Amino acid sequence: MHVIILAAGQGTRMKSALPKVLHTIAGKPMLGHVIDAARELGAAAVHVVVGHGSDAVRRWADREYPAQALHWALQGEQKGTANAVQQAMPQVPDTAQVLVLYGDVPLVSATMLRELLSAGTQTLALATVELEQPRGYGRIVRNRQALVTGIVEEKDASVRQRAIREVNTGLMSGPAKRLRGWLAKVKNDNANGEFYLTDIVAMAAKAGLKIATVNADAREVEGANDRAQLAGLERRLQLRQTDALMQAGVSFADPARFDLRGTLRHGRDVMIDIGCVFEGEIELGDNVRVGPYCMLRDVKLAAGTTVNAHSVLEGCETGADCVIGPFARVRPTTTLAAGAHVGNFVEVKNATLGAGTKANHLAYVGDAKVGARTNIGAGVITCNYDGANKHLTTIGDDVFVGSDTQLVAPVTVHDGATIGAGSTITREVPAGGLTIARAREQKTVKHWQRPRKKT
Amino acid sequence: MHVIILAAGQGTRMKSALPKVLHTIAGKPMLGHVIDAARELGAAAVHVVVGHGSDAVRRWADREYPAQALHWALQGEQKGTANAVQQAMPQVPDTAQVLVLYGDVPLVSATMLRELLSAGTQTLALATVELEQPRGYGRIVRNRQALVTGIVEEKDASVRQRAIREVNTGLMSGPAKRLRGWLAKVKNDNANGEFYLTDIVAMAAKAGLKIATVNADAREVEGANDRAQLAGLERRLQLRQTDALMQAGVSFADPARFDLRGTLRHGRDVMIDIGCVFEGEIELGDNVRVGPYCMLRDVKLAAGTTVNAHSVLEGCETGADCVIGPFARVRPTTTLAAGAHVGNFVEVKNATLGAGTKANHLAYVGDAKVGARTNIGAGVITCNYDGANKHLTTIGDDVFVGSDTQLVAPVTVHDGATIGAGSTITREVPAGGLTIARAREQKTVKHWQRPRKKT
Amino acid sequence: MHVIILAAGQGTRMKSALPKVLHTIAGKPMLGHVIDAARELGAAAVHVVVGHGSDAVRRWADREYPAQALHWALQGEQKGTANAVQQAMPQVPDTAQVLVLYGDVPLVSATMLRELLSAGTQTLALATVELEQPRGYGRIVRNRQALVTGIVEEKDASVRQRAIREVNTGLMSGPAKRLRGWLAKVKNDNANGEFYLTDIVAMAAKAGLKIATVNADAREVEGANDRAQLAGLERRLQLRQTDALMQAGVSFADPARFDLRGTLRHGRDVMIDIGCVFEGEIELGDNVRVGPYCMLRDVKLAAGTTVNAHSVLEGCETGADCVIGPFARVRPTTTLAAGAHVGNFVEVKNATLGAGTKANHLAYVGDAKVGARTNIGAGVITCNYDGANKHLTTIGDDVFVGSDTQLVAPVTVHDGATIGAGSTITREVPAGGLTIARAREQKTVKHWQRPRKKT
Repeated sequence: MHVIILAAGQGTRMKSALPKVLHTIAGKPMLGHVIDAARELGAAAVHVVVGHGSDAVRRWADREYPAQALHWALQGEQKGTANAVQQAMPQVPDTAQVLVLYGDVPLVSATMLRELLSAGTQTLALATVELEQPRGYGRIVRNRQALVTGIVEEKDASVRQRAIREVNTGLMSGPAKRLRGWLAKVKNDNANGEFYLTDIVAMAAKAGLKIATVNADAREVEGANDRAQLAGLERRLQLRQTDALMQAGVSFADPARFDLRGTLRHGRDVMIDIGCVFEGEIELGDNVRVGPYCMLRDVKLAAGTTVNAHSVLEGCETGADCVIGPFARVRPTTTLAAGAHVGNFVEVKNATLGAGTKANHLAYVGDAKVGARTNIGAGVITCNYDGANKHLTTIGDDVFVGSDTQLVAPVTVHDGATIGAGSTITREVPAGGLTIARAREQKTVKHWQRPRKKT
Repeated sequence: MHVIILAAGQGTRMKSALPKVLHTIAGKPMLGHVIDAARELGAAAVHVVVGHGSDAVRRWADREYPAQALHWALQGEQKGTANAVQQAMPQVPDTAQVLVLYGDVPLVSATMLRELLSAGTQTLALATVELEQPRGYGRIVRNRQALVTGIVEEKDASVRQRAIREVNTGLMSGPAKRLRGWLAKVKNDNANGEFYLTDIVAMAAKAGLKIATVNADAREVEGANDRAQLAGLERRLQLRQTDALMQAGVSFADPARFDLRGTLRHGRDVMIDIGCVFEGEIELGDNVRVGPYCMLRDVKLAAGTTVNAHSVLEGCETGADCVIGPFARVRPTTTLAAGAHVGNFVEVKNATLGAGTKANHLAYVGDAKVGARTNIGAGVITCNYDGANKHLTTIGDDVFVGSDTQLVAPVTVHDGATIGAGSTITREVPAGGLTIARAREQKTVKHWQRPRKKT
Repeated sequence: MHVIILAAGQGTRMKSALPKVLHTIAGKPMLGHVIDAARELGAAAVHVVVGHGSDAVRRWADREYPAQALHWALQGEQKGTANAVQQAMPQVPDTAQVLVLYGDVPLVSATMLRELLSAGTQTLALATVELEQPRGYGRIVRNRQALVTGIVEEKDASVRQRAIREVNTGLMSGPAKRLRGWLAKVKNDNANGEFYLTDIVAMAAKAGLKIATVNADAREVEGANDRAQLAGLERRLQLRQTDALMQAGVSFADPARFDLRGTLRHGRDVMIDIGCVFEGEIELGDNVRVGPYCMLRDVKLAAGTTVNAHSVLEGCETGADCVIGPFARVRPTTTLAAGAHVGNFVEVKNATLGAGTKANHLAYVGDAKVGARTNIGAGVITCNYDGANKHLTTIGDDVFVGSDTQLVAPVTVHDGATIGAGSTITREVPAGGLTIARAREQKTVKHWQRPRKKT
């Protein structure tokens, strides 16, 4: 089975520098959704017919797919869908079953496509939909035996044909050899001077083939020609994803306010509050709770972890029962051991925090290795950057780093040390004891006058 | 009047470790909504029939309700609704009117239930709904006089009966003594081998009772069997709440993006911007404005107070005209006097700020008592924790605490004091004057070279 | 053409201290939307008939509109719409065409109003709508020639008239002289004792005028009588705005979760993630990306700039390719040159950052002028306020300000200087070299014991 994906359109109504099929839904170009669907069907080869912005499309694909995963065909001029399919046909063997998909119709279901393919290699199979308002679409014409005889476009349709509610979706499968023959015979004697793929349906019927049809859901075969339609597809996909997650046991405070742009693996009784955005690969253990308006990207949270409101986590992994946020910013590459806490207005980056360690208030912990049960006070900063290079701060177990301490890296604080508030630590801190690196005097100028407001 | 609430189901489709009736909507278990409805109706006794997860249900109820508020009955095996009701009946006196509710049908209105009860103690009363698509539900069968004669299940229904759009909700009231008799006669000779409560309707009709029916709103009698249905009930309840608040004069920028999980008392002209989440008991005075994406839990804000975007407030109370946020975090137990300001990236916890006092930028004020008209500079930290115990910081009126000052508690700063930026205050600061506790020297190493980036 | 806007109502169901027409949608009072529509139509004069809360209405208008832009008429008592229009008529010349609008019907489209005006100065023109459920509205009665003969109110309507689905909207235009005559003849012999403007329709028909009608969209002629209706209008306007922006090429992750309260000018391929709120005048260059939950007010961002999640920007302007947030707070009046970065938990106010300059972590930069390629370390604070006045911090190019440094303004740091972490800079810092202003000693008390938790 060979899949041909038509992806040559410009998408003028997108008003974009980007070719249409690279516009994303759920964080992935529309074309990516179609390619992934084709690959999941087990296609022997996936052919992508590009045209407008073909360089951009190929550059994107080169990044996202293994070499040789895709075959490319170039449609130099936009001369219609039949012409587009023809560009890919030289690479398709006569014996193949061909499935035609569209780079801007990204929500097609595997179920429907499998049904289309199940018609087999001896006939043409069409995906059709029943519409309440068929206006504007090509109608599926059937004879008295209910066999498809052709597709009639709106403008050529009789009054009776216009009443037909079954319309063409453009999605079809057929035997390569015959397809090749029919394509060669398609003419462009129409208003737009284009070669239409739909014309082969009548050819197939005339050739005596019993054309198979698959009844698709109208919502899975919609395309996106402008940003509003793109946003419509986005919402549809999001609700589809959220619904599947709810059936699998994930709770959402409001499924209409959740955005997943990637994949979510989850344990039991995961609760996701309103307005969260998940990107990349997310894995949440049993009883993980994510508060309102959290953004997670490539995050793995172990069972019992709580992420409070307004936290932004990226590229991190936690042990069990961690408490994060509100207003926490965790950046790559960070590991929190079981029971660690990262609190409000705290940034953690490229760091490990040991079990039970806490950095709860206004702190910057970057390029650091912190042991277990250590307390990072409010306002503590690891001075990891000297203006040129990044250096490591190493802190042991059971350390107490007083508020507003600066740890000038590279520096090591040994187990059990206590550092007084406001210290600038530039040298190694021995285990235990109290280390202070600040002025000790506190002086008051008694008769000093505070400045007055200038008028 | 005795209420029997059926709450024994497991809720397999929830895919949860929690029994179904403990799943929450608007922050309260579904069962809690039903119990509260029953208590508001003035039930002489509320009986809860538990089964799956009965320990968890009882533990939750023990926390939430006064001792003796609820009577418990255990349904050991899930042998049907009639069997479930029977478990509670031994505790119900013959003379009582019995109202049967369901722990997973939480949105029943008091109005409808009162109507059901108004049928009185001499007959059976059923809540029914009219459905466009009655498929799958038991149909209410009536004779030529329009009197109910029984309920016929979908699979047993004739073609004519299937056309009936009035269906059973399961909610009913009836006289205890007769109910007891009918329940004893219910048989389990059906496909599931269960004893169905609906069977008593035909018994009552045969006994010559004129069965009363109350036409319920389909939306109030829906149950939740999976997370998607639970989310549906959540949205319905939220919109119901928000609509009532709008009728009472509260403005919402978008009523579909507001979540109230508790109660909201309010003055006049309260404006709530998009995306806020309120939990627990919230009280907002006249002209209070809450900006986008604020989270409030157990908060009381006096008239004229403004909370700016992305603030998280919990367990606090303000005087009039306070200004909070954006990005403020106020934790329990905090009191702000009139006109106090708490600004961005500021955390306040267990503190009082006097009238007109400001902590506007990146500060931590914990375990503190601050007077009036005091200015807490950017980056100021009350070092309240010594690694073992919390200590109090006391600051007087008209104090100016310079930026990045650490106040090492326990410590007192007296009225009118000025503290120089970057001070580590470890001893009492006298009233007035300028106190500095930092190194005074500023030295420059002229020919020092900044490190170069390693390659 | 003179426009008369009726804006005298109290709006009791708003339950507000504010007169109804001052309630806002998209950040502007409903009356403001109507006045702006009237002015855009090129009205020779705009008359506003005020009553309840007239002082508040005029105070608001005085702030928002140029002097003499509006003419005021006072309706002392609420005696009906005809009476209201009459209050403005003395200021309207006989030759004028009069357009009657309503201060609480803010979504009227210019297209529809222009059509209404195109009926010309010789006849009366009515805006009508077709409703599925016309109940409660005045029906448009037509004769056999389909000419309007009058408006019949619900309660006076015959069964046949009640079936009429075309209803009155109250919006109309007509010749001033004749209008004046008809208004004088309107009687208040009805249940409410009010003078109704609709009565003039029958008068005009009787006078032999061929009354014109314009078929309006029901959604543009809805008024707001309570907060729920107000919220409904808000959503409708928001979707209308967002739809226009999408057609112009702006991408929204979810158009239903975007609020624009002002104007948005934009380049190509602007992407706006979920939940953003834009206020005032916003201008976004090509390829600008705004992350989830950002608030922008009066902001101009040059091409390629990225604003990450949860940022609040007000009164600022950037060069190309700036990176802001997440959790950034930028306040007026701030300018970021090309490639500047403002990161998490950073507040910038009344400052300029030079090209490539970075303040990425927990900092306060206020009243500052910072050169190019300078690095502002984590926790750095410009101490701009001495308790009475604000002072300027000047920082040159290529400066490295170490973490947790306080810059006590007024102070200057010259090009290429490096400041050691934890310094309190009170004096000028020379160019180049390393400047430190902190205690240099670091001492450890070896046998010190950390306090124990009190029980």
